Amino acid sequence: MSGLSKNKIKWIRSLQLKKFRDELGLFIVEGEKMVIEAIELCPERIESIYFIEGTINIPKGFQHTAVSEKELDQISSLKTPNKALAVIRKHTQALLSVPPGLILALDGVQDPGNMGTILRIADWFGIENVICSENTVDCFNPKVVQSTMGAIFRVNTEYCNLSKWLRQVNKPVYGALLEGEDVYNSSLKDDAVLLMGNEGKGISDELISLISHPIMIPRFGKAESLNVSIAAGILVSEFKRR
Amino acid sequence: MSGLSKNKIKWIRSLQLKKFRDELGLFIVEGEKMVIEAIELCPERIESIYFIEGTINIPKGFQHTAVSEKELDQISSLKTPNKALAVIRKHTQALLSVPPGLILALDGVQDPGNMGTILRIADWFGIENVICSENTVDCFNPKVVQSTMGAIFRVNTEYCNLSKWLRQVNKPVYGALLEGEDVYNSSLKDDAVLLMGNEGKGISDELISLISHPIMIPRFGKAESLNVSIAAGILVSEFKRR
Repeated sequence: MSGLSKNKIKWIRSLQLKKFRDELGLFIVEGEKMVIEAIELCPERIESIYFIEGTINIPKGFQHTAVSEKELDQISSLKTPNKALAVIRKHTQALLSVPPGLILALDGVQDPGNMGTILRIADWFGIENVICSENTVDCFNPKVVQSTMGAIFRVNTEYCNLSKWLRQVNKPVYGALLEGEDVYNSSLKDDAVLLMGNEGKGISDELISLISHPIMIPRFGKAESLNVSIAAGILVSEFKRR
Repeated sequence: MSGLSKNKIKWIRSLQLKKFRDELGLFIVEGEKMVIEAIELCPERIESIYFIEGTINIPKGFQHTAVSEKELDQISSLKTPNKALAVIRKHTQALLSVPPGLILALDGVQDPGNMGTILRIADWFGIENVICSENTVDCFNPKVVQSTMGAIFRVNTEYCNLSKWLRQVNKPVYGALLEGEDVYNSSLKDDAVLLMGNEGKGISDELISLISHPIMIPRFGKAESLNVSIAAGILVSEFKRR
């Protein structure tokens, strides 16, 4: 089948908005590499694939539509659309309320690039679960999805009332605070929660009181702060290297 | 003095292009916070300041022009211009050919956000010098400048033929390679070069042969790679914590 109706274009484009992603339980991934990863990693969750004829080999059993460059441009959220786009069903599996192992908790991370990078860090270091406050950027936002480099398929992400969730966690809660204990000299338990805050405001007051172990990355120079995804990378590395 | 001539607007806007930044030896910083930092940290290098009347107090001795919101919008590189913009003279001080301490070397980092974040990491960890290959993104690119959060005023950045430079460095050259030695178990010397590569291609073949100590961040999960700025953050943290 070839060609896209106006309604189909509108429907795909609507998935750039959280409201419709939530309503339909769908999100989009873009680019040859991401679409191939989706086919490998979650074939049962692919709703449909749109691609430039002759670019990817789509195995049998997938609903797919060859599109023109112009059509891809119309449905893409990228400035430079990249050969293919797939509509994917969101994970529906609910997390255990407190999964084992190290859990990343995000309090109001706003920047899609930071969010995607943090999911990629989780994926590299084998952290399976990321719990987010309700005001954290949606992990199915197209910009987040693209910057996860495939981590979106492997890391479980759940949104909840973080204050309520942290109150019933029976694990140490490490929180990244500028006035925390030097992380290099802290004893870190791997069965724990690591809480990271918003880019500008840090961790909200309400959640600070729920931190059992405030930690910080020592500063040797003069910068005021580190980017939240860099801090997350360094702290997770500290948990994992021990 | 108030108001901007068309020529002045054109001149300021031209600084969004590397060609004119190089030709004029100038770059722009934007936002109230960055302009105040420039006044504090490098007053002698400020060429001129443009600001919305009533926002910042500009000390005596600076060439400054009150502008309207519309005018600021015309000279700004930001989607949402932020109250003030300053034109700054670039550092003219040449670095020692091989400065003491840990030096970051960047081989073809392309993304302005990554570049800015790496300079911010250097600033946090007290790394004074960053040496870049000629195909690394210009550190005076407006997007880089904004994402350094002030590090642009404190970290020395130089562009050169990295292959030639590395050949005359009399220090260990650590390079971030996927097949390197586990960094957690490596002995790291602080008087060294840490070489990071391009986002997609990594370190170029020519430079790989100049690495004396290939190192890597162990992977516990399934991601294919880490973002270059995250890897830089974790590796620099490893050098500094010891």
